[in-house]
This record gives sequence, C-alpha cells and structure tokens, in this order.
Amino acid sequence: MGDHLPVEAAATPPVLAVVGVGLIGGSFAAALRGAGAVSRVLGVGRNRKSLQEARELGLIDAQASLQEAAEQADIILLAVPVGATRQVLEALRPHLRSDTLITDAGSTKADVVAAARAALGERIGQFVPGHPIAGAEQTGPSAAMPHLYKGRTIILTPLDENDARARRRITQLWEACGARVVLMDPEQHDVVLASVSHLPHFLSSVYMWQVASAENSDLRLELAGSGFRDFTRIAAGSPEMWRDIFLANREAMLSELAEVRASLDRAEAALREGDADKLHDFLEKAALARRFWGSRSRLQ
Amino acid sequence: MGDHLPVEAAATPPVLAVVGVGLIGGSFAAALRGAGAVSRVLGVGRNRKSLQEARELGLIDAQASLQEAAEQADIILLAVPVGATRQVLEALRPHLRSDTLITDAGSTKADVVAAARAALGERIGQFVPGHPIAGAEQTGPSAAMPHLYKGRTIILTPLDENDARARRRITQLWEACGARVVLMDPEQHDVVLASVSHLPHFLSSVYMWQVASAENSDLRLELAGSGFRDFTRIAAGSPEMWRDIFLANREAMLSELAEVRASLDRAEAALREGDADKLHDFLEKAALARRFWGSRSRLQ
Repeated sequence: MGDHLPVEAAATPPVLAVVGVGLIGGSFAAALRGAGAVSRVLGVGRNRKSLQEARELGLIDAQASLQEAAEQADIILLAVPVGATRQVLEALRPHLRSDTLITDAGSTKADVVAAARAALGERIGQFVPGHPIAGAEQTGPSAAMPHLYKGRTIILTPLDENDARARRRITQLWEACGARVVLMDPEQHDVVLASVSHLPHFLSSVYMWQVASAENSDLRLELAGSGFRDFTRIAAGSPEMWRDIFLANREAMLSELAEVRASLDRAEAALREGDADKLHDFLEKAALARRFWGSRSRLQ
Repeated sequence: MGDHLPVEAAATPPVLAVVGVGLIGGSFAAALRGAGAVSRVLGVGRNRKSLQEARELGLIDAQASLQEAAEQADIILLAVPVGATRQVLEALRPHLRSDTLITDAGSTKADVVAAARAALGERIGQFVPGHPIAGAEQTGPSAAMPHLYKGRTIILTPLDENDARARRRITQLWEACGARVVLMDPEQHDVVLASVSHLPHFLSSVYMWQVASAENSDLRLELAGSGFRDFTRIAAGSPEMWRDIFLANREAMLSELAEVRASLDRAEAALREGDADKLHDFLEKAALARRFWGSRSRLQ
C-alpha cells in the first residue's frame, strides 16, 4: 500500500457487526474471534431462527438491529445478496460513527460500489469493498467454520476515498483469518470473476437445463457418469443468488460469453471438418492448462 | 431377452483374453477372477511394460498375441481406443474359434459396429458390442480394481446377428462383475452418450482453452475457485482419447451441440434483456434437476 504508518498501538479489539450471519459472515466472525481480533460480535439479519442458531453456535454474542450495529460497531461486514447492499447501507448511514469501517463480501464489485456511493454519499471513504474467494456446498450459520478463509484469496477493491488506515485495517482483519489479500479495481474484478466463476455457473446451468428438457431426459440422466457429475455440480446452486449475480455483472458476463462463443465456434468447426490435428491441439492446450492449474491449486 | 433357455450346465469357467489391460480391461479381469467366473486370463497389448505390470499385479496369467488370444480364449474383451477396433478384429478373425464371443468397452457404438462388420464379415454374430459407464481419474493396470463395475451401468447394444446365448453370456459376465446391464441400439447409445458424456467434455475443454488463452490468464487462474475446479476437472483428460471419441461420434455431437446452443441463446437473451424472471426460471429448473439427479445417483 506504500505507506509506512506504524501498526496501531494495542487497544481493546474492535466490536464487529456482521450483517447476514451465514457461511460467509459466520466464518468471518468465527475466524476473528478465534484470532482474538474482535472483542464482541453483533449479528444482524431478517431471519430470527438463523440468528438464534448463530448465537447458540457462539458465532455472535448478541442480535442487533442495523441501527444498533451502526451505533456500536467498529467494523461492519455486509454478507448479504449484492442487490440488498444499497438498502442496508442506507439504513446504517444515519447512525454510523465516523470511525466505523464497513466492508462487504459481494460477488460483484462495480455495482456494489455504485450502490455504496449512492447510499453513503460523502461517507463513502468508510466503505472498503471486498470479495472473499471462498465458499462451500453447505450454507447457513451451521456451515460456518473458523478455517474457511485459511489460505484463500480475498480481493479488495479499495476506493480513492479510502484512506491508508481504512485499507490497512480491513486487510489486517482478513489476514487475521488466514487469508491472502489481493488488490484490484472493481471493473477488473468483475471481468475476471465473470470469467472464472459466473460463466462456469451459467454454462453448467444452461447445459443441465438442456439435458433435463430433452424428450428422453430420464434415460440420459440414468446413464450420466462422473464427468457429468463434476461438470454440473455448480448448477445445483441457489437460483436466486446466481440470478442476482448474473444481473449485477451483466456487461462483463456478456462480453466474456462472446469470447467463449468464439472459442466454441473454432472447436466446433474443427469437429465438423473432422480436423483431427486442430481438435487435438485445442484439447491438449486445455488439458495441459488444467493439469498445471491443478498441480498448483490449493483446491485440488 | 425374452428367451427361456436354461442356464448352461456348470462347466470349466471360460478362458478370458483382454486386449488392452489398463483400468477398464484390468478391472474386468480382476472382477471376473474374483467371482470365479474365469479359469484363466490372457493379456494382449503393445506395451510390454504394462503387460508385465498386469502380470505382477495378478490381473492376467500370461501375455499373449492376438493370434494366441483368438485360438485359446472363450471370451475376448477389447479395451482399446475405438479407432483401433477394426485392426484388432481383423487380426483376430483368421484364428477365431466359432464358439468364442467378443465384446468391447468402446465409448461409441455405431462406428464400432461398422468396424466390426467390416472386419468380421459373416462372423459378426460373435461380437456383442458394449460400453461400461465407469472410469476413474487414474489409468493403467495399477489403477485396475475388482470393484470398479460394482453398481455401475453397462450398456450392451446387441446386434440382430447375436443369438440368445451370446447376449446372455456377455450379460452374465458383466453381472458377475456386480454391474447392471442396460440394452440399447447403437445409434441411441451414441446420442445419449454425446449428451451426457462427450459434450460436457467438449464444453469444459473449450471453456478451459478460452480462459488459458486470455491475455490475463495468470490472474484469472489465480482467482479461480472451487466452482471452476469442478467445472473443468474433465478438461484434464487424455487429448488423444477424447479427440478419437469426438471424431467417432461426430454426427451425434454436432446435433447435440446445436441443442445446447439453442438453450444458450435463450439464456443469453434473458440475461441481455435483464429478464430476472426468465433467468430465475431457467436456473431453478437446472438446479432442481441437478439436485434430484444428485439425490438418486450412486455417484454422489
């Protein structure tokens, strides 16, 4: 970050408020609590049962309203659908202390930044946008785990209005969770995530939809094997969440989709022409790239 | 099969020859040997080291040439690339006993049947085409396991020329491996497999190729997560094997690809128009179909 400010003197660890105490928010709370990096955790959410469960699991100390969170917290994490960002920030703003920092875990960033600017106005400097590249098949507070972010990458897309202290503080919190922080600008984030996260989900769902809509879909599904299983696993994800992500990141999605279509056109032409060399060439490049990725990835 | 012939009287279990003693052929041998369903196993292959390994692992009793296999075996399994089918059958034919049955494990069937007709001529009745829906990430004799086919589906595409005894005998052998046998015609097999096996591999490879070819591919691959991992796992497969499968099943591939493109067009239009309802509808259908499949599949 280029600045050389001294690490802040030890003081009472901050109060954390988590808006949306599911897998993502609950794991952030659990990790920071485990690291002794927070003194108290407030949980905010619309689902009373979920908050009750989070409290029983020890993820949060108390339930709170958005107003109470704004008044009491030093750090606020938004772990809500990206489409709810503006509304939540608007509710927080009138009560927000000037030294409180807000970050988020939304899967898209350009739209979240726009929503935050609209909601926070001149206080936009208190919002440091982020996106943890982590997830799991299970959701909800019971799926939260202190180690979810260990070794994972967190993308922060800081704003010009974020001062060095704000950037450093949010970075340190994620590092306390065991994560590695990468800085990008929001538009670059959205294009890269459209490519490696949103588009695979879109394509997997389109494919699954086509198979399930075929006249003899029962027979097809009966004969589907392990390749099908892996290729379609992500298509089982939440329709609401992914619809919102696709719409929030529409421009980057459409642009990346055009690139994939261009590759598909070339591969299909090689198949149609029976061009064994071209087919082999593209399959080999794909296989080598995937094997290399697999050999380096912590996810394998 | 509609016939009511009595089960054949107990006799010396047959001699099995496996052409291509890798994962598929080796597991067939190991399963039948474990079930006491074969008296002796001959291994045929071009790779001496691989055959030696198969012998040390106890998968085969002895190495043999194609001529020796034809002369000595009661049952011959071809576990070779589909493109090699005709050549192998032509080498077997002059030495083939009239009561020997041949089956195969090729991923495509219409082209294999055509190759078998060309190679075997009037002896085509001795060939019962098959395709085990089973595989594993590892290959070679050391990956072979007696339980590979347990609970898995084997597709047989019997020919009009196969008599009831031939059909029953090959069915019984697969059932002795713990598998479930399903009968289809070769063309239907190829369309269904294009849909649930070959096309996912093609699409996964096209996508992987596009990501790896992007200008900022390093950054993309660094930020790829678990969805990317699952969606692209099959793209790491053998370029040679998949090129041959795609070419062997080209017509069905192109026809199924047109169907997937039609679905992609509709989903992309919904995204472009920002039609949240349409997007949700297609994502929900895909998610429900995938979850239902997952809840019933033995592969999950």
